[in-house]
Amino acid sequence: MRVVRVVGYHQDLKLEEAPEPKITSPLDVIVKVGAAGVCRTDLHILEGQWEEKTNVKLPYTIGHENAGWIHAIGDAVTSLKVGDKVILHPLVTCGLCRACRFGDDVHCEDSLFPGINCDGGYAEYIKTGARSVIKLDPSLEPAAVAALADAGLTAYHAVAKASQLLRPGNVVVMIGAGGLGHIGIQVMKAISPATLVVVDRNPAALKLAKELGADHVIQSGDDDAFVKEVQALTNDKGAEAVIDFVAEGGSTALGVRMLRRAGNYYVVGYGENLNVPTIDIISTEINFIGNLVGSYNDLSELMVLAAQGKVKLHTTIYKLEEFQKAIDDLSAGRVRGRAILVP
Amino acid sequence: MRVVRVVGYHQDLKLEEAPEPKITSPLDVIVKVGAAGVCRTDLHILEGQWEEKTNVKLPYTIGHENAGWIHAIGDAVTSLKVGDKVILHPLVTCGLCRACRFGDDVHCEDSLFPGINCDGGYAEYIKTGARSVIKLDPSLEPAAVAALADAGLTAYHAVAKASQLLRPGNVVVMIGAGGLGHIGIQVMKAISPATLVVVDRNPAALKLAKELGADHVIQSGDDDAFVKEVQALTNDKGAEAVIDFVAEGGSTALGVRMLRRAGNYYVVGYGENLNVPTIDIISTEINFIGNLVGSYNDLSELMVLAAQGKVKLHTTIYKLEEFQKAIDDLSAGRVRGRAILVP
Amino acid sequence: MRVVRVVGYHQDLKLEEAPEPKITSPLDVIVKVGAAGVCRTDLHILEGQWEEKTNVKLPYTIGHENAGWIHAIGDAVTSLKVGDKVILHPLVTCGLCRACRFGDDVHCEDSLFPGINCDGGYAEYIKTGARSVIKLDPSLEPAAVAALADAGLTAYHAVAKASQLLRPGNVVVMIGAGGLGHIGIQVMKAISPATLVVVDRNPAALKLAKELGADHVIQSGDDDAFVKEVQALTNDKGAEAVIDFVAEGGSTALGVRMLRRAGNYYVVGYGENLNVPTIDIISTEINFIGNLVGSYNDLSELMVLAAQGKVKLHTTIYKLEEFQKAIDDLSAGRVRGRAILVP
Amino acid sequence: MRVVRVVGYHQDLKLEEAPEPKITSPLDVIVKVGAAGVCRTDLHILEGQWEEKTNVKLPYTIGHENAGWIHAIGDAVTSLKVGDKVILHPLVTCGLCRACRFGDDVHCEDSLFPGINCDGGYAEYIKTGARSVIKLDPSLEPAAVAALADAGLTAYHAVAKASQLLRPGNVVVMIGAGGLGHIGIQVMKAISPATLVVVDRNPAALKLAKELGADHVIQSGDDDAFVKEVQALTNDKGAEAVIDFVAEGGSTALGVRMLRRAGNYYVVGYGENLNVPTIDIISTEINFIGNLVGSYNDLSELMVLAAQGKVKLHTTIYKLEEFQKAIDDLSAGRVRGRAILVP
Repeated sequence: MRVVRVVGYHQDLKLEEAPEPKITSPLDVIVKVGAAGVCRTDLHILEGQWEEKTNVKLPYTIGHENAGWIHAIGDAVTSLKVGDKVILHPLVTCGLCRACRFGDDVHCEDSLFPGINCDGGYAEYIKTGARSVIKLDPSLEPAAVAALADAGLTAYHAVAKASQLLRPGNVVVMIGAGGLGHIGIQVMKAISPATLVVVDRNPAALKLAKELGADHVIQSGDDDAFVKEVQALTNDKGAEAVIDFVAEGGSTALGVRMLRRAGNYYVVGYGENLNVPTIDIISTEINFIGNLVGSYNDLSELMVLAAQGKVKLHTTIYKLEEFQKAIDDLSAGRVRGRAILVP
Repeated sequence: MRVVRVVGYHQDLKLEEAPEPKITSPLDVIVKVGAAGVCRTDLHILEGQWEEKTNVKLPYTIGHENAGWIHAIGDAVTSLKVGDKVILHPLVTCGLCRACRFGDDVHCEDSLFPGINCDGGYAEYIKTGARSVIKLDPSLEPAAVAALADAGLTAYHAVAKASQLLRPGNVVVMIGAGGLGHIGIQVMKAISPATLVVVDRNPAALKLAKELGADHVIQSGDDDAFVKEVQALTNDKGAEAVIDFVAEGGSTALGVRMLRRAGNYYVVGYGENLNVPTIDIISTEINFIGNLVGSYNDLSELMVLAAQGKVKLHTTIYKLEEFQKAIDDLSAGRVRGRAILVP
Repeated sequence: MRVVRVVGYHQDLKLEEAPEPKITSPLDVIVKVGAAGVCRTDLHILEGQWEEKTNVKLPYTIGHENAGWIHAIGDAVTSLKVGDKVILHPLVTCGLCRACRFGDDVHCEDSLFPGINCDGGYAEYIKTGARSVIKLDPSLEPAAVAALADAGLTAYHAVAKASQLLRPGNVVVMIGAGGLGHIGIQVMKAISPATLVVVDRNPAALKLAKELGADHVIQSGDDDAFVKEVQALTNDKGAEAVIDFVAEGGSTALGVRMLRRAGNYYVVGYGENLNVPTIDIISTEINFIGNLVGSYNDLSELMVLAAQGKVKLHTTIYKLEEFQKAIDDLSAGRVRGRAILVP
Repeated sequence: MRVVRVVGYHQDLKLEEAPEPKITSPLDVIVKVGAAGVCRTDLHILEGQWEEKTNVKLPYTIGHENAGWIHAIGDAVTSLKVGDKVILHPLVTCGLCRACRFGDDVHCEDSLFPGINCDGGYAEYIKTGARSVIKLDPSLEPAAVAALADAGLTAYHAVAKASQLLRPGNVVVMIGAGGLGHIGIQVMKAISPATLVVVDRNPAALKLAKELGADHVIQSGDDDAFVKEVQALTNDKGAEAVIDFVAEGGSTALGVRMLRRAGNYYVVGYGENLNVPTIDIISTEINFIGNLVGSYNDLSELMVLAAQGKVKLHTTIYKLEEFQKAIDDLSAGRVRGRAILVP
């Protein structure tokens, strides 16, 4: 089959022929790829940022946002049948450790991450495990939802966690209305009564944010102006929650200034250090909450919102062999919404 | 009456005569001071650290850990009578704002903090509000519990919050077995089944920790050795919770290394910056939880534990006029347990 | 001033002259009544159903759903000023007991319930306490929101509690789309992503339910048919939550049949006994959750939804002196929405 | 191998030869039985009470509280090896459904219950699944812990759920200090600071309760006296929680009278109907919480408490061939603690 592989860091991806994956364990599942999302993390992989963390052996097939149809199943798989239309949770988890049993899949003590540390979905077929497969509602197609498998899931997980504590009249600020943010906005409006304020430096992103339901958008080149507007919207008390999809370029220092006493700061993006005096943490009793991908149950809930039409992705479709164009377009900021490879 | 006042920063406290406080509002309460705790914060006040934050007008009477007997009550106070033996929640709160109504007293939108921003308890009498008074169990005396009003309350609040998520087999690390820590140890053992590991550089503090019920104590001059022992106790997974009563001198960097994936870091002490790469926060999905004093209901629960004999303070008693000796002893590290002034 | 009083049980209410209420305690507040809701409980009071429970001394002024303008305040009231437009939490609470401090106002250990056990709002003025007053958004008028003070608050409290556990794809069944139910529907759609199924025997109520946002409505004269439809909507698993605004005429037996394993049954209405074999409770591990009015903070959140236009009441306005017509219309089922008395 | 089977209802069990169980699925596990608890449910099975619910085909091997050593494992089992000393969670669960993924094993949509609806542990070998096996601490032996697999787990699950809401000074009443109750007492004292009151009609059971750590025990032949004592212990407010291990013979009516406003009633035992006026449920806003066995993670936590010596079972050992004596002794009330069969 055709696959797109990492053949070396700081080199281009390469389209090659490779054997189809095979069932080797009774819970294995082979999926015919219908669509694979092209993610900024893929660029980071090529830049070598993940080399040391994953130690993945080259060459390997990238792509960690996958959807398609069941192609083959292991002997012990009874919940799926060939032909089922599915989306894949990005991790392959053990189901036996304490974390898996509590539904904290991403903290599985014995997991794989196809596309990151083993072969992924820039291919005609991908191997995963029975525990990672969610059947799609008939109204949803792989190409329309593939990018929800990771980017969407991450946004959903953080927003759902934040929404547990948000009540009518509370204010939540989202920093960043890009890839994750534009999904987060839709999720927040679908599941929470809180007043949503979106902060971004990009006017086009804020226009989209407003269309997707943000109650207020704030654009500014000036941190003081951002903070001033949030304070104005909150009687000078600050927001009950800040969800930071950026966490670089000074966003955390900005975000903390927008937070209310006893407020919660959700770190989703990454890049810079969180650097806060402990006296500020204790004197206002604020919390910083880490967020990492999301669970299988999270993804199944997100698929409900997608099937209900409450969460939609903007996508640009490329053929698998156009992978280089997709990568180049993403890198150059030319992709509207999310780039999707279709074999 | 006799009062001990701040007459200037970077100067000694001064024993003076001052008029007794008077009831001026229907919910006022005057308490005859039975005991006032001498706190490290009192040293910081004299050093001018709080000057800018409180803008308190000098001279004023310090002392924010107070217990005694009801001396006079305002017209609208029906829950108390003269002579009642009481401990005082450190804040005087409004009872009307959203925070007060949810029991988050320390985030009251209209509060006073006697001893910090108005006259406190190094005195014969102190004025507070009806909402701040807790009647003592007959078995408890003001001198035995006064220091629980702030130091004990702060430890209780953080430990009770942490214990909500701790199950049998979970491991919690406490950094610092000093003033707050030695109360925190007793509280944790009284309310939680978690395995408690205490970390300190002081052998005497660790000896006390062990006597008070710590399951493991770790002493070391070397951060790597601390971390190695915690990893050994947790199958290399780290602790579900770290409660940091220090938060200076590098303790946060040390503590984060002891934390498990999805673990919670409780910041109680303060001094240094919390400085953590956001990629570490998200890739392990850890949380940082601020802690500030505690609520009235927290203090009433701590008084239950005290009345049950589950939490005990070591105290050294000084007469009010010996305030300078108490301050000097605390400053020089000569106080065993907690210094208490008795008028 | 003019008041409408209970002068005896099983007798008509009577319009009389009475002295205006006076400030007698520093936290008292006198409100000029702008509107008072006419509630089915008022009929029950006249029928003597509450005589034994309240022991209220006759004659007294009824009316427990009140809104208006501040007329006078006690010496210790600093949060309000004469002329403020307000709605009243139905209870006058102490603010000092453990329940009040946790925000569970209805479990206050020392409360009054104007209109139930002391003089209420079928009058020109009513006395309440500073803790019971919520300022209205400029966009809201007393006549439009008065009935939210009790009926609306009760629905909000139960729905908000239920919504804490509801996720996308979960199904919640509401039994009863009448006075409380039609508010409950609006609240549920405003704060939760769950799929809402409304069950009622009245076609007009179901028509309104649908207009207000119910995802599915089920009408039937046959319990088996009700249950069958809910099972069909839930893959034969039942609903995650049932909110029973009726709890008489067999509704609880019906509702339990609609409940999923580990589901929650919210009892809001009352009348019949809940009578369930304990083996059914444990073998499916279901819960029954009581609901009683709501807290001050609940009411303030409901006022946010009202100001945002997300919760609207249908009302029929009567002048105070038309009280008998309002009572008669309510009793005869001729009131569309909620009857409101305006002095 | 030797097995003890149900050969017909209302007949004695029969010791027979049967083939050893075989691995037929990659996740199967065969355990050499070290000990099997004899449970009152076994008597109920013989009485035919479960015939209709399980439709199990006779003859079959009973016994649902099992511990022993791994004898054989399927191809896909990597977490266990032959010889491991283990206790078995009573259910064999799928690990794929939403309930399993949230850790609610007992609500698995595709489970088996060995000893109830397929072959159990009154035998030399038993078949279970890889997801059901917990390795024992070296200090624990199968015969000492087997009865914790179901009776202990059920008590742990209910007590752990209740303890989440219990704070210092809160009062919890346990009804019944028998098989489940005597474990529940030990668990409650190990994990919660609440004051524990135990109610039973049997003086010997109360003596044991006191030895195991109950703070108060109440014995009475008179419901009014029971209630009066609980009221005396709670300032006439009632208990924050009641855990009912009996739920027959009038215990629920008694228990509800002991409950505080906003209190929680945990139904664990079964037999009678819960029959409560809805007006009593709403006017005091009380909750009824069902409890069913417990999760794998619950059982692993209970094993931690057992390994720490905080939970101990009293057991009487019988050889497998003495099964009839064990059954007779249990039936006649002659078993001290828990009867255990050892092959």
